[in-house]
Amino acid sequence: MTRLSELGESHVLERILSHNRSGSQVIIGPGDDAAVTAVDGNLVSTADMLVENEDFTRTWLDWSRLGTKAAAQNLSDVCVMGAKPHGLLVSLAVPNSTEIEDLEALFAGIVAEAARAGEALGCEIPIIGGDLSSSGLIVVAITALGTVGGSGTGTAASSAGTHGSGAAITRAGAQPGDSIYLAGTIGRAAAGLDLLFAGVDPNADVGQDDPQPGTSLTELINTQLAPQPDYAAVLEMRAASAMIDVSDGLSTDLGRVAAASGVHACIDRTALQELIDPLLPAARHLVARSSGTQAAGSTDKAEELALHWVLNGGEDHGFVASSAQFDTPPVGWRRIGEMRDGSGVTLDGAPVPTSGFSHFGK
Amino acid sequence: MTRLSELGESHVLERILSHNRSGSQVIIGPGDDAAVTAVDGNLVSTADMLVENEDFTRTWLDWSRLGTKAAAQNLSDVCVMGAKPHGLLVSLAVPNSTEIEDLEALFAGIVAEAARAGEALGCEIPIIGGDLSSSGLIVVAITALGTVGGSGTGTAASSAGTHGSGAAITRAGAQPGDSIYLAGTIGRAAAGLDLLFAGVDPNADVGQDDPQPGTSLTELINTQLAPQPDYAAVLEMRAASAMIDVSDGLSTDLGRVAAASGVHACIDRTALQELIDPLLPAARHLVARSSGTQAAGSTDKAEELALHWVLNGGEDHGFVASSAQFDTPPVGWRRIGEMRDGSGVTLDGAPVPTSGFSHFGK
Repeated sequence: MTRLSELGESHVLERILSHNRSGSQVIIGPGDDAAVTAVDGNLVSTADMLVENEDFTRTWLDWSRLGTKAAAQNLSDVCVMGAKPHGLLVSLAVPNSTEIEDLEALFAGIVAEAARAGEALGCEIPIIGGDLSSSGLIVVAITALGTVGGSGTGTAASSAGTHGSGAAITRAGAQPGDSIYLAGTIGRAAAGLDLLFAGVDPNADVGQDDPQPGTSLTELINTQLAPQPDYAAVLEMRAASAMIDVSDGLSTDLGRVAAASGVHACIDRTALQELIDPLLPAARHLVARSSGTQAAGSTDKAEELALHWVLNGGEDHGFVASSAQFDTPPVGWRRIGEMRDGSGVTLDGAPVPTSGFSHFGK
Repeated sequence: MTRLSELGESHVLERILSHNRSGSQVIIGPGDDAAVTAVDGNLVSTADMLVENEDFTRTWLDWSRLGTKAAAQNLSDVCVMGAKPHGLLVSLAVPNSTEIEDLEALFAGIVAEAARAGEALGCEIPIIGGDLSSSGLIVVAITALGTVGGSGTGTAASSAGTHGSGAAITRAGAQPGDSIYLAGTIGRAAAGLDLLFAGVDPNADVGQDDPQPGTSLTELINTQLAPQPDYAAVLEMRAASAMIDVSDGLSTDLGRVAAASGVHACIDRTALQELIDPLLPAARHLVARSSGTQAAGSTDKAEELALHWVLNGGEDHGFVASSAQFDTPPVGWRRIGEMRDGSGVTLDGAPVPTSGFSHFGK
């Protein structure tokens, strides 16, 4: 194992860039003052930063999964605009004492998630630039770029006819009467986070005789550490009037769509049951632990906790779309409610507080 | 004064975004999952991150100038590619206890520097996206976007005829026989940094009867804390065969041009004298302090220190260009040497070690 301080900046860059892939859109890649790439259509851009002790801790740190998570949260933001990802800029700050193999694992995690997204969406997503610094805290700041409305094929939104949005699908187009659809999962990353905080053994027996795929304790923790957005689902939702990446919780993010579109989002509690049930064993386990008994915890409390995860937990990077109702929802999507006249978010008619994640305590 | 923790994320965003300017290229600005902007030509992108205790300390912190510096170092990278800046993505991590007025000053510093660049280059440079987190350390991660080779007017490179570079000016085009030109200054930010480290009173009398503009101790420190690149100069250098932003020191950055172009960069010591002389009072002051006497320090040592600043100090964000020789250099540029067959960087024939700044200690 070799520490970065023994290698020097240029050799560190050489090592990590050896994991990068190129793309036919790249005219000038990493290594000059800036990258130059050929874009087709309007540019879509977003930036997200993961900071140690705020978004992850060294205790749970797995460098590769940190890379996956950082890439996924940015790529899902581009993808949910109906855009085709175009490239990533990756700025990293890590301690001098970091081992090059760990930094390579982080970088390779980013590259692998970009490759997974590219495969799902039919595009190349190279890392085209970035920055590398030493720092006491680990920081991963990624900018994801994409294009929408170009002459090429395959972008979800090119046929969406969303006027004034440069062919992108925004939060602002939902109409009363639209159905609300969900792709991917919600609540699993939040369950994983609570399991991590509680110090639960991921291999504990929580009475899941036949756990639904993705809901074992290990898998819930994995979803927190390295979410796997269902990028391809966006391609199936070409007619969406609005779409959002659920990163701060369904209540908060659906509330953003409702506010931007001027509609009232009504969630159907029954439709959420399929998302809640697989989380019940983990919820019961946590409730039992916190009540200090190994006996099964209160069923009501476990149900309440699982519902809280589903409504308010972000970070699975599920996608929520508003669309005219389908007889059969597109592949990967389930109907979870409808848009009506009014404002706010309700669950079976009762107001849902938008209590998802917010920085700075409110 | 109100702390961010008392305001909550959405109010913090509202306050800081109130300082932002828009631009005609913006279709969807900050507030959705990603921004959508109309681009004309190839895309130019670069990212740079400033991390507390690595790139600045709270002792010297002036929030507004931190914003200036973060914007300047990114905008100069776009500009030196011969590109027209298009927009910024700004990711900020600051402690919960930060006062909103300080964060606004930081943001306003970024906006003001973008406006200064926009005025020099004839374009609008809005902040189109970003991220805001709480963190123990202050981190400012900016991505600057630009366009080159579009149908619009005013980009330096659209007539440069640099094949295979998407109309951008890269580091790789210098030819033996070209002259080397410098715009802006070098060495001043490095002098300012040494003054800060030495704890020098910026108002000390260092015997500058008639200091050259920009070289008083206060101004040298200012150049370190808030560099002011001469963006407009790039527009005057339309025929450059190669160009680079001097961010890690002339020796290092000119070495990068030499390596990328396969040429030998010969710096003319005489041409640097005009850059060295104004730094001598500050250098003499520091040499005298470190030798423990208030008498003027050794002239040789001061000259050596000032030359070191000029050769190895980055962060003024001066620009170096390679070009066929002009009878009269373009406005803002001075000739400092020439490119020959070979490799490496020499000063009057003697090798110059590329001892500029590098992360991870080498």
